[in-house]
Amino acid sequence: SVPFNPADHSHRRYNPLLGEWVLVSPHRAKRPWQGQQEAPATEQTLSHDPTCYLCSGNTRINGEVNPNYQSTYVFTNDFAALQSSTPNHKDDDPLFRTESVAGTSRVICFSPDHARSLPQLSHAELLKVVETWVEQTQLLAKDYLWVQVFENKGAVMGCSNPHPHGQIWAQNSLPTLPAKKLTQLSDYYSQHNSNLLQDYVERELKLNERIVVSNADWIALVPYWAAWPFETLLLPKQHVARLSQLNSEMQQSLADIVSQLTIRFDNLFGCSFPYSMGWHGAPNDANAHPEWTLHAHFFPPLLRSATVKKFMVGYEMMAEPQRDITPEQAAALLRQQSAVHYSQAKE
Amino acid sequence: SVPFNPADHSHRRYNPLLGEWVLVSPHRAKRPWQGQQEAPATEQTLSHDPTCYLCSGNTRINGEVNPNYQSTYVFTNDFAALQSSTPNHKDDDPLFRTESVAGTSRVICFSPDHARSLPQLSHAELLKVVETWVEQTQLLAKDYLWVQVFENKGAVMGCSNPHPHGQIWAQNSLPTLPAKKLTQLSDYYSQHNSNLLQDYVERELKLNERIVVSNADWIALVPYWAAWPFETLLLPKQHVARLSQLNSEMQQSLADIVSQLTIRFDNLFGCSFPYSMGWHGAPNDANAHPEWTLHAHFFPPLLRSATVKKFMVGYEMMAEPQRDITPEQAAALLRQQSAVHYSQAKE
Ligand SMILES: O=P(O)(O)O[C@H]1O[C@H](CO)[C@@H](O)[C@H](O)[C@H]1O
Ligand SMILES: O=P(O)(O)O[C@H]1O[C@H](CO)[C@@H](O)[C@H](O)[C@H]1O
Repeated sequence: SVPFNPADHSHRRYNPLLGEWVLVSPHRAKRPWQGQQEAPATEQTLSHDPTCYLCSGNTRINGEVNPNYQSTYVFTNDFAALQSSTPNHKDDDPLFRTESVAGTSRVICFSPDHARSLPQLSHAELLKVVETWVEQTQLLAKDYLWVQVFENKGAVMGCSNPHPHGQIWAQNSLPTLPAKKLTQLSDYYSQHNSNLLQDYVERELKLNERIVVSNADWIALVPYWAAWPFETLLLPKQHVARLSQLNSEMQQSLADIVSQLTIRFDNLFGCSFPYSMGWHGAPNDANAHPEWTLHAHFFPPLLRSATVKKFMVGYEMMAEPQRDITPEQAAALLRQQSAVHYSQAKE
Repeated sequence: SVPFNPADHSHRRYNPLLGEWVLVSPHRAKRPWQGQQEAPATEQTLSHDPTCYLCSGNTRINGEVNPNYQSTYVFTNDFAALQSSTPNHKDDDPLFRTESVAGTSRVICFSPDHARSLPQLSHAELLKVVETWVEQTQLLAKDYLWVQVFENKGAVMGCSNPHPHGQIWAQNSLPTLPAKKLTQLSDYYSQHNSNLLQDYVERELKLNERIVVSNADWIALVPYWAAWPFETLLLPKQHVARLSQLNSEMQQSLADIVSQLTIRFDNLFGCSFPYSMGWHGAPNDANAHPEWTLHAHFFPPLLRSATVKKFMVGYEMMAEPQRDITPEQAAALLRQQSAVHYSQAKE
């Protein structure tokens, strides 16, 4: 009988961070696509768009005027999902369990330039973004247990304004996914007396099969259990628990690897590569969190081209995530991309 | 100070089926939408489309010819994600945990008519769909632990062919979401010595705040913990563990309520309402499963109109699902829709 071949046969891989499985069906990559095509991302050409409510000096929807900012710019979301004034409330009925959530939602404009996203920023500009992430998580950690730094990039990822920006939602409760992670990472730590993600990095460095890019301090790889076609995990090579703990050297090298990774993303299909990305550092409680290594997830939806995405629907919503190309194939495709952004290579 | 008001203040609701939370931010519904708009679903006008590979008598991508079917038609997916011939394999490495999955993927054409989806079928036609679900789950339960019946409806839900059809993926492992449910339902059963979903139905019938439609045997409601704007849970009023156990009376009344519900869905925004739906019956092991009530989830993506959907991105992918309008508001909007499909009302 035929021996099992992970590049050919259906199998499940276990995501140890969440305790959940992913169905891998490699042979399905041959399926022709006759369904919905996305509109390719519109290239922004103006550095300042007078109709954009995030550009400097412009008036926002709520009437406030943006300052003439020159670097990053942070403000409270005009339609914040979380508000600090929420009154306290709790109901423990097992079928109607409820708790109020107090928090805040902020927007970070990455730079005044309306037309350049992360892979097109200079090292100095990207460093400002990293510094803002660090600063904001330091500030908000004083008041909130969980600070979620994230970016929705591209209209297909629900981003409602093309001006390059990210968000920070901070709250007094630990959301579902980080809460699961805390359990998983703590269980591993007590079982193995070591840090899951540090052990994982060590194994991946030896295997060298799923690494996309790395530098002295950081590594970006398509995890063994990736659900999205080009899902990428970015993490430090040595243990650091939170963004707020990065020293200036590691902030520099983080700016470098974010640039390296996002340039390869854009080059893969020759388009501004959409994704949702976000940081997961240890919760802001009084514990040291030796079990938790800081990391960022990049969840990009595209599958085959700038216009064909992966749909996480029916089976995925009811049973478990499913992927076609293997993480190893995805990592190889990303790794072989040029280190120069396609918009510059064309010039 | 202001008292807590669930229609005004941010709060989390607990989904007891999965042990996960949902963030509800009701005040955020006021946010204007400037992001991506979906193309409204193209109305199918031909009853038989010569280019459709699901219409009767046509040739499929792999060269097979569909019979001239007159009712429902079931065949094995030409690009099946699951295959019965998968060789056995297992690796318990905690960081690279893997297991092979054997199974099958089938397609169910709901009727020969290319232009009529579930809400536009006659009672007799819908009954055939229900009977096919029952038959297929009975058949596949002999070989597979988990049989996932589902439908992806609409291009925005990754449906690659407009011919009304559903799918069945069957497999020898219990996928992540049903496995979580089994734990949650069993825990509740041992704690309360009663069935979680039956207790829940009883409470909802008394409260009468989130019910969309019901009949003698079935009830459809927007659950207290709904994540998608118009998410709906369909379940029997009395305990039944699996689709395969429905008697002919309950199959009749199921056809009726599916019609009632999906007509209201279509009428809400005057369009063919996209969703992913799927059935969760008890796993096909030797146990009686008194803790598990059969139910179907409907996860529709639209938020405000036929072209504006909810994006489950950044915060949702990193932290937990977030919704704007409350489940109570969503249920009221669905409930007040006409019982006559808009395409017939227009005539
Ligand atoms: O099998 P289909 O309809 O071509 O594919 C669709 O449903 C599948 C099961 O939910 C998903 O994995 C695919 O991403 C989706 O496009
Ligand atoms: O706040 P935005 O960018 O307008 O909204 C976007 O990001 C939010 C956080 O991930 C999501 O809840 C919204 O569905 C999405 O459209």
